[in-house]
Amino acid sequence: MDKSTIIGILTGVFLLGFSLLQGAGWQMFFSLPSFFIVIGGTVAATLVNFPLSDVIGVMKIAQKTMTHTPMSQKSIIESIVQISKKARTNGLLAIEQDLHTLDDEFFKTCLQHVINGTEPEDLRNIMETELAVMTQRHKIGQKIFMGMGTYAPAFGMVGTLIGLIKMLQDLQDPAGIGPGMALAMVTTFYGALFANLFFLPMAGKLKQRSEEEILYKELVLNGVMSVQAEESPRIIKNKLITYIAPKLRTDTGNSGNQE
Amino acid sequence: MDKSTIIGILTGVFLLGFSLLQGAGWQMFFSLPSFFIVIGGTVAATLVNFPLSDVIGVMKIAQKTMTHTPMSQKSIIESIVQISKKARTNGLLAIEQDLHTLDDEFFKTCLQHVINGTEPEDLRNIMETELAVMTQRHKIGQKIFMGMGTYAPAFGMVGTLIGLIKMLQDLQDPAGIGPGMALAMVTTFYGALFANLFFLPMAGKLKQRSEEEILYKELVLNGVMSVQAEESPRIIKNKLITYIAPKLRTDTGNSGNQE
Amino acid sequence: MDKSTIIGILTGVFLLGFSLLQGAGWQMFFSLPSFFIVIGGTVAATLVNFPLSDVIGVMKIAQKTMTHTPMSQKSIIESIVQISKKARTNGLLAIEQDLHTLDDEFFKTCLQHVINGTEPEDLRNIMETELAVMTQRHKIGQKIFMGMGTYAPAFGMVGTLIGLIKMLQDLQDPAGIGPGMALAMVTTFYGALFANLFFLPMAGKLKQRSEEEILYKELVLNGVMSVQAEESPRIIKNKLITYIAPKLRTDTGNSGNQE
Amino acid sequence: MDKSTIIGILTGVFLLGFSLLQGAGWQMFFSLPSFFIVIGGTVAATLVNFPLSDVIGVMKIAQKTMTHTPMSQKSIIESIVQISKKARTNGLLAIEQDLHTLDDEFFKTCLQHVINGTEPEDLRNIMETELAVMTQRHKIGQKIFMGMGTYAPAFGMVGTLIGLIKMLQDLQDPAGIGPGMALAMVTTFYGALFANLFFLPMAGKLKQRSEEEILYKELVLNGVMSVQAEESPRIIKNKLITYIAPKLRTDTGNSGNQE
Amino acid sequence: MDKSTIIGILTGVFLLGFSLLQGAGWQMFFSLPSFFIVIGGTVAATLVNFPLSDVIGVMKIAQKTMTHTPMSQKSIIESIVQISKKARTNGLLAIEQDLHTLDDEFFKTCLQHVINGTEPEDLRNIMETELAVMTQRHKIGQKIFMGMGTYAPAFGMVGTLIGLIKMLQDLQDPAGIGPGMALAMVTTFYGALFANLFFLPMAGKLKQRSEEEILYKELVLNGVMSVQAEESPRIIKNKLITYIAPKLRTDTGNSGNQE
Repeated sequence: MDKSTIIGILTGVFLLGFSLLQGAGWQMFFSLPSFFIVIGGTVAATLVNFPLSDVIGVMKIAQKTMTHTPMSQKSIIESIVQISKKARTNGLLAIEQDLHTLDDEFFKTCLQHVINGTEPEDLRNIMETELAVMTQRHKIGQKIFMGMGTYAPAFGMVGTLIGLIKMLQDLQDPAGIGPGMALAMVTTFYGALFANLFFLPMAGKLKQRSEEEILYKELVLNGVMSVQAEESPRIIKNKLITYIAPKLRTDTGNSGNQE
Repeated sequence: MDKSTIIGILTGVFLLGFSLLQGAGWQMFFSLPSFFIVIGGTVAATLVNFPLSDVIGVMKIAQKTMTHTPMSQKSIIESIVQISKKARTNGLLAIEQDLHTLDDEFFKTCLQHVINGTEPEDLRNIMETELAVMTQRHKIGQKIFMGMGTYAPAFGMVGTLIGLIKMLQDLQDPAGIGPGMALAMVTTFYGALFANLFFLPMAGKLKQRSEEEILYKELVLNGVMSVQAEESPRIIKNKLITYIAPKLRTDTGNSGNQE
Repeated sequence: MDKSTIIGILTGVFLLGFSLLQGAGWQMFFSLPSFFIVIGGTVAATLVNFPLSDVIGVMKIAQKTMTHTPMSQKSIIESIVQISKKARTNGLLAIEQDLHTLDDEFFKTCLQHVINGTEPEDLRNIMETELAVMTQRHKIGQKIFMGMGTYAPAFGMVGTLIGLIKMLQDLQDPAGIGPGMALAMVTTFYGALFANLFFLPMAGKLKQRSEEEILYKELVLNGVMSVQAEESPRIIKNKLITYIAPKLRTDTGNSGNQE
Repeated sequence: MDKSTIIGILTGVFLLGFSLLQGAGWQMFFSLPSFFIVIGGTVAATLVNFPLSDVIGVMKIAQKTMTHTPMSQKSIIESIVQISKKARTNGLLAIEQDLHTLDDEFFKTCLQHVINGTEPEDLRNIMETELAVMTQRHKIGQKIFMGMGTYAPAFGMVGTLIGLIKMLQDLQDPAGIGPGMALAMVTTFYGALFANLFFLPMAGKLKQRSEEEILYKELVLNGVMSVQAEESPRIIKNKLITYIAPKLRTDTGNSGNQE
Repeated sequence: MDKSTIIGILTGVFLLGFSLLQGAGWQMFFSLPSFFIVIGGTVAATLVNFPLSDVIGVMKIAQKTMTHTPMSQKSIIESIVQISKKARTNGLLAIEQDLHTLDDEFFKTCLQHVINGTEPEDLRNIMETELAVMTQRHKIGQKIFMGMGTYAPAFGMVGTLIGLIKMLQDLQDPAGIGPGMALAMVTTFYGALFANLFFLPMAGKLKQRSEEEILYKELVLNGVMSVQAEESPRIIKNKLITYIAPKLRTDTGNSGNQE
């Protein structure tokens, strides 16, 4: 469960709600036509920009982002080191029985290739293509949110222009100018709010997650290739530990050095 | 047929049309002079920026984008695996008779090179040059739409400045100020609308398509080179399947593992 | 002669001229002080930004862009294939007599190196340095126009600020406010117009040309290196044809296959 | 202690404070609701954009930036040269006793690997992974400040829109228009100020520090690898001195040449 | 002496001064408080963004830029060719006596390495590290001016907001509105002017200079390495001449061909 996404959105909504409800005139901020222009225009532009299936899939991605559990690099390093010890004493085929106990699909696939006797070069090529293609897939989600974050303020401005043009045609009633402008500005407000509280930060978080996952998978791939090369568990640990921030290394590091 | 482009444009037009037609004053949004300044200025700047033939070709590209059928990666992998089996049992020359049954030009050209006995290195060099040159050609379409998406709001602003400068010279009739400003703003409205509902999203979709096509052609090239190297069909399948998103792999994957 | 640059500028000027001349008040759009602030400021900033000789040379580049004839990739491929045939039958030295019939300087230099017996590696190094240095030279032209396209709107805004600050100091005559603001806005209008109808699109066209020329020269260099390696004319043709868009290949392609 | 960060912030606050306090009306600049919208919205968007732990860690990073002591490249080169002399005369294992006198963790780790007999290639791979992972970690801090520098003005505008929409609904009291607009503008003021005096410059300083640190660590890694290769101290010095700006080289340079 | 920087700044100042002094009201453009907010704020943000020593050094860089003499590529090629002739006839050690006649530090260092018998690979590594580190040093100057060019308009806007907020609080005297707004706008004017006439163009010129210098040093390094490899002076000339624009080659080229 990714707490920060939910905390962030709730904090933002709460703060702005509080600020809107202070004093009179909060009703004007809830305008269905303004909402339809901003969200409708944004969705329309997004559909022109991206394939239908990807746009539909983006809500699933957003949901997945919020319920995401970060991967523990320490425990995966522990697993790899355990497996490398087993492989050194009992041979590579002895790993097979451990496969069923692993959760991580990428780790499993890599080990399966090792057991099947895939050549190291082929293994690296196959898994690096997999990583490259995965990165490109991840980028579509980022790009869709980034696109929505660009189109939302634009359609906010389009809606404000529509409101202003209508209002300016009939200035005979001076009392109508203020509320007319206020109504026109609500779409700009919606565009800025949706873009900066949801679309752009979501694009940023997807990017962050994708970089994290790639680093994690590179760690796994390098680890499995070291296992295949039958390097000593101590050296494997030394290599893989460089993927962890220094301040997080200590507890793992001790056991590693004692070995 | 690319549904999302058409759905997107129709949704956008419908939503904005609905919003314009609410209440009085919709006539002002249909201003032929404003239309000519925005579209004329955009086309003029685009002609200065790009070669004539490319600008003329861009409408064809836009049309092609809307009637585009996405390529199926699964079926091409199946074809490559079938051909690799044939080549392993009957020799590379036996592929020749299959050439006529293939739709894909790039796939055909690669196979023809294999049958002609082009060296693997030469084949890779030739086809990678082809890919690089194709990418550069694709980029012209993207750049033209991107350029139009930049020039349209600029000429929208130029038109608004023309309207404002004319209006400001004669402020003696206060009743004329409102409609004058409204008229001036229509070009900004046009510029923002055309850029964000059509030009920029079209540039985005062309980019998306281009990346898809390059990934697809890399898959084909890698597959054909594996056929040439007479690798086992099972290994070829394992290699190529990394180009497909994991969740789409299953049905193909089963048959692959059973082999 | 590059028609699109001239057509583009004329279309833009015509359209805007027509739009300015409609109704009264067109005189205000021709303001010499506004012109001097925008163009003078842009030129001043450009001189601070770039070396004097490059800024002076940029007008020559602009002129050259308009009178530019695109290079025919088909005919150069034909030339290379003819020369390769001659070299295969009569030896590399037999090419020397053809040198005088060639227009293209880059092609000539490459062939001269081949005749002089420059080693393939040296030839590639020398000509690739030439290409890299040429690209950097081309970029100065692009950067100058791009810089002017950035400075022009900025000085347009500076001029408008000057106008507004002067006008706002003396608001006692309400009749003067409108014309004062109109006059102030003319510099913004100039800045936006010059940037979007001339400077930015010219930068774009120079970039386009430069990419075209580099692709063309890479084709020539690869072709000449194949001639030097005494590859078969058919293979050379197959290699070089990848530089041409598929739809343009057919007529050349036929003769190539018949060979 | 990094003086420039503190001097910069104090100078900015002092200058603006002085400018605000001139004349009447300074009270309006201290608006708690405006502060909450800008900072609250910025923090909310940042939490959606980045993992919770990284956002919490960013204050620590900001503090660390201010108390940072720059590393001396000259003294580290001296150390490396001393160690290389010792290693040449007494063997690589003789370095071990110097390990405890070193402050720099990265230097220590590199030397420990040399003493442990890690192969040069492995040493380079391990330490370059460490550098790459460190760079990615550093970038999160930069990205968070950069994100805050983007969100702060956006929420400043959102706050101003809220203020304007509320004010415009009730224009009956003309005396309230001015103060209403002033109040609305304060959030824009906050957004621009926080972004340009704190968030964006801090992102820049973190980037600067990170580049400095990477250069420093590359120097150390290259130096240690030269020690491992048992190159002559004079050559090592010549190599490493290229990392220092020429004008700073002289004093070190003399001793180096006399050797 | 770099004339264009000085001509540019003088032209800009003259043009704007002329435009300000036309008509009444020029006194308002000289506002010390506005000047302090824009320059003070810009310097403050720059100090937060960059190390103190680099910010202090930037004025020296600006001065150096104005008194800079461009390097002549032709004469350095002549020198290298002369030295290569001497080295071919009298051996590499004979170059030593020429060292004292050379002005260029980088050229001297390269030759000194050749005389000292540094291996070609080591020479390339050392000098390329030197170039890479020099490029990074150069970039700090560019980044500081670029940063100032970004912060100046931002603090211009901050100053204008301060002015407007103060003015809007007290609208009872309508006669004060105009001058109040004018005063507020002066900071925006300063910010736009300093950024576009000085900071941004200076950043551009430093970038230009840096690219020029790197190209020049690559020429020198390649030339010296050819001398070390004892290539023929004619081939060295042919190689190095590719660094010069074709139209500038002729005079040197003739003597080169006659050789």
